[in-house]
Amino acid sequence: MFEDAELGHSVDKATYDARVPALRSELLDAQFMLKDARAFPVVLLVGGVEGGGRGETVNALTSWLDPRHVEVNGMGDPSDEELERPRMWRFWRALPPKGKIGIFFGSWYTAPILQASLAKGKVRWAKLDRRIDEIVRFERMLEEEGALVLKFWFHLAKGAQRKRIRELKKDPLTRWRVTGIDEDYFKKYDRFREVSERTLRHTSTALAPWLVVEGVDRRYRELFVAEELLRAVKARLEAPKAARPTPARPSDAPEVDARRTLLSELKLTKKLPKPRYEKDLEKWQGHLALLTRHRRFRDRSVVIVFEGNDAAGKGGTIRRVTSAVDARFVRVVPIAAPTDEEKAHPYLWRFWRQLPRKGYITIFDRSWYGRVLVERVEGYCTPYDWERAYGEINDFEEEVSNNGVVMAKFWLAISKTEQLRRFKEREQVSFKTFKITEEDWRNRKKWDAYSDAVCDMVARTSSAKVPWTLVEANDKYHARIKVLKTLCERLDAALD
Amino acid sequence: MFEDAELGHSVDKATYDARVPALRSELLDAQFMLKDARAFPVVLLVGGVEGGGRGETVNALTSWLDPRHVEVNGMGDPSDEELERPRMWRFWRALPPKGKIGIFFGSWYTAPILQASLAKGKVRWAKLDRRIDEIVRFERMLEEEGALVLKFWFHLAKGAQRKRIRELKKDPLTRWRVTGIDEDYFKKYDRFREVSERTLRHTSTALAPWLVVEGVDRRYRELFVAEELLRAVKARLEAPKAARPTPARPSDAPEVDARRTLLSELKLTKKLPKPRYEKDLEKWQGHLALLTRHRRFRDRSVVIVFEGNDAAGKGGTIRRVTSAVDARFVRVVPIAAPTDEEKAHPYLWRFWRQLPRKGYITIFDRSWYGRVLVERVEGYCTPYDWERAYGEINDFEEEVSNNGVVMAKFWLAISKTEQLRRFKEREQVSFKTFKITEEDWRNRKKWDAYSDAVCDMVARTSSAKVPWTLVEANDKYHARIKVLKTLCERLDAALD
Repeated sequence: MFEDAELGHSVDKATYDARVPALRSELLDAQFMLKDARAFPVVLLVGGVEGGGRGETVNALTSWLDPRHVEVNGMGDPSDEELERPRMWRFWRALPPKGKIGIFFGSWYTAPILQASLAKGKVRWAKLDRRIDEIVRFERMLEEEGALVLKFWFHLAKGAQRKRIRELKKDPLTRWRVTGIDEDYFKKYDRFREVSERTLRHTSTALAPWLVVEGVDRRYRELFVAEELLRAVKARLEAPKAARPTPARPSDAPEVDARRTLLSELKLTKKLPKPRYEKDLEKWQGHLALLTRHRRFRDRSVVIVFEGNDAAGKGGTIRRVTSAVDARFVRVVPIAAPTDEEKAHPYLWRFWRQLPRKGYITIFDRSWYGRVLVERVEGYCTPYDWERAYGEINDFEEEVSNNGVVMAKFWLAISKTEQLRRFKEREQVSFKTFKITEEDWRNRKKWDAYSDAVCDMVARTSSAKVPWTLVEANDKYHARIKVLKTLCERLDAALD
Repeated sequence: MFEDAELGHSVDKATYDARVPALRSELLDAQFMLKDARAFPVVLLVGGVEGGGRGETVNALTSWLDPRHVEVNGMGDPSDEELERPRMWRFWRALPPKGKIGIFFGSWYTAPILQASLAKGKVRWAKLDRRIDEIVRFERMLEEEGALVLKFWFHLAKGAQRKRIRELKKDPLTRWRVTGIDEDYFKKYDRFREVSERTLRHTSTALAPWLVVEGVDRRYRELFVAEELLRAVKARLEAPKAARPTPARPSDAPEVDARRTLLSELKLTKKLPKPRYEKDLEKWQGHLALLTRHRRFRDRSVVIVFEGNDAAGKGGTIRRVTSAVDARFVRVVPIAAPTDEEKAHPYLWRFWRQLPRKGYITIFDRSWYGRVLVERVEGYCTPYDWERAYGEINDFEEEVSNNGVVMAKFWLAISKTEQLRRFKEREQVSFKTFKITEEDWRNRKKWDAYSDAVCDMVARTSSAKVPWTLVEANDKYHARIKVLKTLCERLDAALD
């Protein structure tokens, strides 16, 4: 992996001086086209060894580019707002929108590589591989969402690194950058090399290979990175839009036994008499109130997803949850059409940005599952795109729930007849008319397609850690109590 | 101020039970209309004494409202990201968009009132008054921008407060909320009362008066706040759009001596020969590089504003600044049309959200001055709106610069002839053509109107702390060096 970057590559001054002016104007042109077409975001990662010239190269590169459309993210120590959220949150929040170049100086690779290299005792390869796998999946999602991902690794052979750090230390202008690097550091060199080599090999994909830059010669480094960036942006701008592959299983494939589905097996008629409901409501709301005041709750956060048929009673159920907890610590996020800032990012971005801090609850009224429900049924995205979404959503939820977030997902199901009854009722009761629109009637005509989508969704995204709870909601009382009770049980288990 | 709130107001159960169902459906209706029209944001502040029932009332209120369109902000201790920015940043970031209700549990009043009340020795009234003045100006801006500001103060007479806290402490369910409140606390009661009374009196305005709620009776509190909220939202929804007042000085008023203006006095022909430029560039870029690595720089942040005639060379100048500093710590924000999230907030919101953390530099390529330049000249807002913007911008810059941010503002001026020359050049040079558009030619026709706007802008927003620097930019070399030199001097002074 690193052999080619230890050959002593260099560029002489004449070649460099001859190339740079044209290169700069080509970079500006490419950047302008990128920005103007809002074609795609460029995610440029910079990693590598200490003293490999990462900082200088990024600075040279940004001085050649139009700085208005570049964002350099020096991913240093996380802030407390970042520490209170899943690991990847800080990277998501820094993702560039379409048309911009986001340079990550330090990235999602930094922590795994350093942890593995600096660990006492043996390297925990299995742990590293797991992180690598998560990274591969994350980057594939970025690519599928249209991002151009470029990864540069600045390498120095051991001797070259020692020499370079000595030079940096001598110069008062650069000394500040290498404080704290001493002989002990080089003892780790071999292990660092081994760990990063494995990481690079396993995360080099067809669309986003690592490019290893020999860090000895300034001119070589700068030209290398700038030429690669230019080439990649131009190639992507000029490339014909790739046709989406056909997914393995078309959505209209007939079921072998369509009589029994997850939805058809639900006993939608389940009922709770009003007096019993009122008692249970008090009980479970009280229990939920206590749980959210639990000492240990302050170290957890909660994400609740509500999906369901139109008129299934999501709003009323959500109100029974929010009214049980301190209003300061809960936020309900209604999901409607994305804003233009949201549209300029991968589709999961708008959900990442709403993830709660520790001690807080976020309730999504509709959610990322829109991708495999309305977008699938209405054809807002291609079959390939919603098919890949199952995996992406699973990754997202795993990342979130692995980082101390308690997640609960509810599907509120009503029968077609009950829906009709409610639609008609809504049309008649004056202050409910706003709840019923033409769209609701349109969706109703696609009842079967939605049912198929729901069954697929549950089958493919329910996991032991983040299961779906299907709620029989023909009777509102039953539905609300089932939701409250499930939430309490989930929280009980998490705080235990 | 508090007399009426010590009379023992209460509401009996029958009255309460009779009113609540209708009140709730009226609240939901009003909220729906508010949301649907994206009419205005509601900013609801909750303040008052400990034990006054603020929390319970907010919880009751949110349980009656549609929680999807309410955001409750428990403004507790600031996070480190908030501490690294001007005081008001955390409130700006929490401002609700149009169509939503933002409840602030704790607000911009909390710190000034607590600081004044709990200070050792005498109350520093002058300091308090200054903060009050800032608040009045801030809230006036919110109102001018269309927000409905509602302020509720929960009051208890001394004896009533003592009694209530005793009750809260007895109940295991509420005990956690009053830990740490002991007899010492009541010693401060009188001073707290005096400080808050003065604050409330001075911040009660026609559009946003404080409403004092007697905190003894739960039903009274809840009805009081809910009825006021309902009334205010409905009144605002039904109110005819108020005509904007005519400003005192119309923009086409003739100047008494129009021969001499800030712009006409500039010696646009100032020149710097190339060899001298190259020397100076190295010198000042080097100096700037050192300053931004100064130990004390990590505790400051920098905001730089670039405005100027079209084709005045802003882009090139900005590049000379950014290329002198570490790319990780600088961000250039190009100001184009606002996104829809930005449009849903007061016009300064999009600039507040970009303010840098400590140790970082933000460069605005065009800025909030668009309000008094393009928006004025093109008639995108009324004369009243851009006239009030001078004061609002001054307040904004004072708030920011008083909180450790170094600010510099540059106007790059070229002559009309020089602009023509550059336009033509841009049309001819292939990779510069993207820089020249129809709009540039249109703006050029309004040269005089823009000049008037620039002179007014400088005259009214240049201050000792945040002065404008007018840069003669017919010669790019001269302009760049003047900008770099000014920046260095400003930073030198700030870090000294």
